[in-house]
Amino acid sequence: MEEDKFIELARKAKAASKKIATLPVGVKNTALLNIAKNLKDNKEKIFEANKKDLEAAFPLVESGKLSQSTFNRLKLDENKMRDMIQGIIDISNLEDPIGKVLLKRQLDEGLILTKVSCPIGVLGIIFEARPDVISQISALAIKSSNAVILKGGKESVNTNTEIMNIIQEALDNTRDFPKYVLTQVFTRDDVANMLSQDKFIDLIIPRGGNSLVKFIKENTKIPVLGHADGICHIFVDESADLEKAKKVIIDAKTQYPSACNSVETILLHRDFKYETELLKALEDADIELIATPESWHKEYSDKILSYKFVSSLEEAIEHINTYSSGHTESIITENEKNAKIFMNAVDSAGVYHNVSTRFADGFRYGFGAEVGISTNKTHARGPVGLEGLTIYKYNLEGNGDIVKDYVDGVKKFHHKDLV
Amino acid sequence: MEEDKFIELARKAKAASKKIATLPVGVKNTALLNIAKNLKDNKEKIFEANKKDLEAAFPLVESGKLSQSTFNRLKLDENKMRDMIQGIIDISNLEDPIGKVLLKRQLDEGLILTKVSCPIGVLGIIFEARPDVISQISALAIKSSNAVILKGGKESVNTNTEIMNIIQEALDNTRDFPKYVLTQVFTRDDVANMLSQDKFIDLIIPRGGNSLVKFIKENTKIPVLGHADGICHIFVDESADLEKAKKVIIDAKTQYPSACNSVETILLHRDFKYETELLKALEDADIELIATPESWHKEYSDKILSYKFVSSLEEAIEHINTYSSGHTESIITENEKNAKIFMNAVDSAGVYHNVSTRFADGFRYGFGAEVGISTNKTHARGPVGLEGLTIYKYNLEGNGDIVKDYVDGVKKFHHKDLV
Repeated sequence: MEEDKFIELARKAKAASKKIATLPVGVKNTALLNIAKNLKDNKEKIFEANKKDLEAAFPLVESGKLSQSTFNRLKLDENKMRDMIQGIIDISNLEDPIGKVLLKRQLDEGLILTKVSCPIGVLGIIFEARPDVISQISALAIKSSNAVILKGGKESVNTNTEIMNIIQEALDNTRDFPKYVLTQVFTRDDVANMLSQDKFIDLIIPRGGNSLVKFIKENTKIPVLGHADGICHIFVDESADLEKAKKVIIDAKTQYPSACNSVETILLHRDFKYETELLKALEDADIELIATPESWHKEYSDKILSYKFVSSLEEAIEHINTYSSGHTESIITENEKNAKIFMNAVDSAGVYHNVSTRFADGFRYGFGAEVGISTNKTHARGPVGLEGLTIYKYNLEGNGDIVKDYVDGVKKFHHKDLV
Repeated sequence: MEEDKFIELARKAKAASKKIATLPVGVKNTALLNIAKNLKDNKEKIFEANKKDLEAAFPLVESGKLSQSTFNRLKLDENKMRDMIQGIIDISNLEDPIGKVLLKRQLDEGLILTKVSCPIGVLGIIFEARPDVISQISALAIKSSNAVILKGGKESVNTNTEIMNIIQEALDNTRDFPKYVLTQVFTRDDVANMLSQDKFIDLIIPRGGNSLVKFIKENTKIPVLGHADGICHIFVDESADLEKAKKVIIDAKTQYPSACNSVETILLHRDFKYETELLKALEDADIELIATPESWHKEYSDKILSYKFVSSLEEAIEHINTYSSGHTESIITENEKNAKIFMNAVDSAGVYHNVSTRFADGFRYGFGAEVGISTNKTHARGPVGLEGLTIYKYNLEGNGDIVKDYVDGVKKFHHKDLV
């Protein structure tokens, strides 16, 4: 799409964002249920479109241009379709994140301040070949009253287009639902356009591998919600329970090795007595152990684990705060005091005690839905639920009140919280 | 400062940020009181340094290179000094924003998730010639356990250096207070270095005029907390009370015309019957009225006011959502329904009813202290208190819990909120 056309589209998305901002929650939920129904009614069309994408992708896998795992993510089956549809219904059942009163304060007699949650505006979503992301993100955007411009991976263009058409049809048939809340773009130029339109786009959410996220973070001034690397650590303290250490590390490394919350490095306290047993157990679980400084920066996303000996809790904390990507870390210890120090001092989105790093996930945290996981230090950190797609505004109601009265001392604030 | 030296300094600030992150609130408050006392004890030194800056600035004012208002902001007097010192004491009395439990949830028996507030890390503060900003921002950073690198305006270099030395001396004499929490840089190159060090600096806060803030927003990938323009609107609805309209607009325009929350444009409903009386009253209050489309984009920061007639509430909302800088807007109306529509539909940090836009201020909102006012759509919006300098992390405590059990269906989450 040419730049001027993209700007026109972004302008329409912005206008739509103002309309959906005040849409009653009933209309939003009806829209979501209409989408779920329409996807269900038309799933064969989606499978057909997906088949086209798979056929086009297959030679690329054979020639090594596309990884098998990307191919797997591209593929939609009955299970994924069912989860996709159920996910939308689940989001329709969540509490409305918009219009929540976060603070209500009487500044003075008859002068009432209300802090109320509201949508962010226009989201730019850039995702790789996972067509189920479209419906999930669209549903989250609708529920949180944001407009969204979607750019999917080129490998899934047929599937994405079909899903988007079906979603759009459902929205067109939803009474009072504004136009242009959801739009889709397709090309590499559109990504560049998206990243440069900070006037119209308020937040970029990349869903994909490290290189995609890094590229985006380096090429836009728009806030980006997401994470690039997931270099998670587990520290096995002097007093660690061997069985817990085994169980947790094996889970964190092997349950889903390519997940961002899988562990990449274990730090072993030199005085931990069962190191031999532990390392043996990890090897028995098919984990390749590596002990070179080069590996401390690396996310293997495979059954490979770096390990390093440290002399103290402090050294472990220092190592993590230096090499971690700020995602999730865990300490295995029976020493409550050390656990507390670790959880306070480690500067990551998730800091755990005696549990697997794999728990870092919006559904597991009970958020009902997940936008993604953020390693940002502002706005939203860790697994991000609907709340991460909202901000707030301040409403102030009075009766002709002026600041001069307070500056001159005629009146005085008394700041009484009502909620 | 050369780039490698700056990086070394930023690295030290980052290390200091990890140390202050876990500092007990008692040490932070002692540090603040020590700073207040040391400033009080050494105020004559500060006045002397300030005199040097004023002497250097005076010829620039005479030759027109420096504005009179910048000169006034540069000048410290007994009143400003007293407010500066009292401000630090006030911050020491505020509740600790760090370590607050924001959520406590049992995910399953013995598996406890806690969302706890924590500092952001390293703040980069860039401010123009207002030496009182140093102590205020330093105090806010200390209270919120952040490290900070400060770059002040070159006109106040002597005053800033003296204040910073006195603050540093107080911190050096505070037991257990880590080194390098506060550092100061001086040159234009340092600004460039600051904006490029996204590895070490987590948030940039500019305090100054539009052009400074715009320059910064356009030249960094680090999140920026602040606002450039302050183009605030007041809409006088059909049913507006004439007296309230007069009072509020005159206050919003004349009480402090160069403030960012002063009104720049009024929109008059065509069916408002007292337009002649209102415009006459504004002129009588020495306000110059302008009615050209060019002025809708302009922040005059003076007793100049744009006005425009609109045919409906919707047209007013549309105008504001197009031309506003997203700072603060107000509707004057006796129609509660219209007030509600306006407050919902206008997309600004502050949306008011029958009150002056000048209320947009952290102290007036009762935040106890103000970092600045943000027109961002993420993280913090409107007047930002200490909370805006914090983020959160998730702690998860268990007893060897693994994700496999939940994926395999051996165990189930029950998500019970404890706080």
